[in-house]
Amino acid sequence: MASTVNPPRGMRDFLPADKTRRERVLGVIRGSYRAHGFDEIETPVMEDSSRLHAGLGGDNEKLAFAVMKRGLTTDKVQAASEALDLADLGLRFDLTVPLARFYATHRAELPKVFRAIQIAPVWRAERPQKGRYRQFVQCDIDIMGESGVSAEIELITATAATLDALGIDGCSIRVNDRRLLTSALTVLGFPTKEHESVLITVDKLDKLGADGVVAELRERAFPDAPVAALAEFLRRPQPETKPEFTEDAIRAALPAGVNEAVIAELATIGHAVEAGRGTSGALIEFDPWLVRGMGYYTGAIFEVAHPSLGYSLGGGGRYDGMIGRFLGSDVPAVGFSLGFERLVDLVELDDAASDDQVALVYDTDADPAILVRLQAELIREGKRVRLEVRPRKLPQLLDQLRDAGFTSFAAVRADSDSVASLEFKPLDGQ
Amino acid sequence: MASTVNPPRGMRDFLPADKTRRERVLGVIRGSYRAHGFDEIETPVMEDSSRLHAGLGGDNEKLAFAVMKRGLTTDKVQAASEALDLADLGLRFDLTVPLARFYATHRAELPKVFRAIQIAPVWRAERPQKGRYRQFVQCDIDIMGESGVSAEIELITATAATLDALGIDGCSIRVNDRRLLTSALTVLGFPTKEHESVLITVDKLDKLGADGVVAELRERAFPDAPVAALAEFLRRPQPETKPEFTEDAIRAALPAGVNEAVIAELATIGHAVEAGRGTSGALIEFDPWLVRGMGYYTGAIFEVAHPSLGYSLGGGGRYDGMIGRFLGSDVPAVGFSLGFERLVDLVELDDAASDDQVALVYDTDADPAILVRLQAELIREGKRVRLEVRPRKLPQLLDQLRDAGFTSFAAVRADSDSVASLEFKPLDGQ
Repeated sequence: MASTVNPPRGMRDFLPADKTRRERVLGVIRGSYRAHGFDEIETPVMEDSSRLHAGLGGDNEKLAFAVMKRGLTTDKVQAASEALDLADLGLRFDLTVPLARFYATHRAELPKVFRAIQIAPVWRAERPQKGRYRQFVQCDIDIMGESGVSAEIELITATAATLDALGIDGCSIRVNDRRLLTSALTVLGFPTKEHESVLITVDKLDKLGADGVVAELRERAFPDAPVAALAEFLRRPQPETKPEFTEDAIRAALPAGVNEAVIAELATIGHAVEAGRGTSGALIEFDPWLVRGMGYYTGAIFEVAHPSLGYSLGGGGRYDGMIGRFLGSDVPAVGFSLGFERLVDLVELDDAASDDQVALVYDTDADPAILVRLQAELIREGKRVRLEVRPRKLPQLLDQLRDAGFTSFAAVRADSDSVASLEFKPLDGQ
Repeated sequence: MASTVNPPRGMRDFLPADKTRRERVLGVIRGSYRAHGFDEIETPVMEDSSRLHAGLGGDNEKLAFAVMKRGLTTDKVQAASEALDLADLGLRFDLTVPLARFYATHRAELPKVFRAIQIAPVWRAERPQKGRYRQFVQCDIDIMGESGVSAEIELITATAATLDALGIDGCSIRVNDRRLLTSALTVLGFPTKEHESVLITVDKLDKLGADGVVAELRERAFPDAPVAALAEFLRRPQPETKPEFTEDAIRAALPAGVNEAVIAELATIGHAVEAGRGTSGALIEFDPWLVRGMGYYTGAIFEVAHPSLGYSLGGGGRYDGMIGRFLGSDVPAVGFSLGFERLVDLVELDDAASDDQVALVYDTDADPAILVRLQAELIREGKRVRLEVRPRKLPQLLDQLRDAGFTSFAAVRADSDSVASLEFKPLDGQ
């Protein structure tokens, strides 16, 4: 039976070493976001089913785990016309829908401009595969109530500083604006009603390359002229060195005639982040063909790329319309989410704070009152103390303790009645 | 619409002040348990439905939220003979069943004696009422693989030290043993098959008092002689001062002829904890009529009481049979759980670490690159920095900042180009 006992499919247990590592990385992220003036909040893991399925979550809505109503009789079950009729709650599939609901619930108690941190698990009933889990942690920051670009600047700055604090080298944060995309498509000759559809293919640029995107657009029978005009831009050689994030650089990467007001806004964002934080750590770059899948974005959009990964480390953007769906009146909002499960593997932590982990090894006839006293005294000195019965094979135990991060041990003898009488020996690999 | 937007029934949002407080208290608990040599682990919030409903969770099993199978067609729904046929997962209702499953899954990777910390939410579909929530946090420590009393001693010591670290005064930890209870009932003349049933009423001693318990036992038609014998012990006057936790004290509180081996074990536990940690903080006391509801306990049982509360702050005990249900072979196990939601309200925290929270107030024409740079520089100095646009009514903003824990602010002017040029003013209530 033992070999068949596993956590539910696509979900993971975390053993002590993993759990410690995860909590330390989360601590760095939380500390960095807090330092940037954001406030942490928490919502329940479940939301009312009707809210989760209000059309705000895109494709992820379909992946929500449904939680059944209570006290369902067989009659009620058999009278249901579809499975979801039997669910009144669901597990959140992202942190954005709950945040919008939270803001609508508590608006009167929150500051006019509210900066939220959410670090919490979400659940998606995805087909389990390498690197995709059914329970995973997201780290989101959002600013609500600020319509100006200062919100985007704060979010990107805090995110870049957090990636730096984690010591993840080589990240770039790509920035674009949904309005720039649609303006460019208009200039290129695509009719407005086809924009969303064209962007589904453009979104595959990283995977398919420029030729692949153009081929797919032709295959999907979009008109030749705008596709050819788009192809010209997609195929342009990339500059050797990253250009500065200026209005000129944005204009140069796009067809002439694109919305100048949006160009100016985007340049303000990019320049402020770049100039403000200097050139160390994560790069900020303008990406004219960054799309981001979610339909709810209304302005600037962001994505974090890392050279070692074929997928993004995180992303976000402005979603001014969403809170209005809960509140009845629109509230400007921008968010930036980091995917913790992807991030945590890239972080290299030093073995800090392991100096003070000690073990007391005792024989079974030792006086337990003295053990308790010795442990309490060592804890007061700031140490982490594990009590271990002396096993027949001591070296095995010492190896295990060393592997678990303990650095020294002392044998408790019949006459060990104070910490001073203990002889600590190092557990370093010898 | 705004007034009807709420979190799901019986579940709570946590605003920044609450969230900060909760995380700080959890940090103290986690730190104290870790210092006592325990290791934190994590399991998914869901377990396979068949495991949650394996009869190990007592009445709580009925309160498990059921998560529906995926891809249920209407035909399958209508063919179900009961609601649970449609669920393959459920949200955990405690941390003990998942721990037993975790241990069965990972036994080969764990030390022979494994000390686990679990600090995590659980869910119960209870009727919402004051102080009872449908999502709440438990803080559990468990020791697996140790059959001797050292496990009980470590758990009670770590729990008492944690209550001390939280500064919660006046707690007492009541200790008893299920085997002592049944031995006492046997001596008093109750047949073995009636023990569980008698204990259901004895468990109400705190609520009903001795006379109430005796009356209920008579009403339930237990035989007169043993009830009268039990009544004599229940009605004995309590000693004015708490006796020391010794074999003599245990023996004196019980009818003659109770299992001496268990008395000796329990005295070893109580004496070691009491003598080892000294008399400060939480008291340890023998409670001959402590029952603990859960049927899975097989030996020592514990409960934390606080004079301000009509219910316990936590409890636990030895449950040597449970892991065997998953693993196929028995593993000794003892656990102690603290109810975080009850605890957190009793903790008084000082306002530490609020010294270094500052706000930069700027006009909308300020250069955002300079704001980013000033913020980064102050963060490097160890400060928490919030950027705020100067509103028409500055005093209102300053009041809000002060209430949120910020201690000083500086106005960013056109010529503010370095931290040195900023003039910080205190935000203390004037």
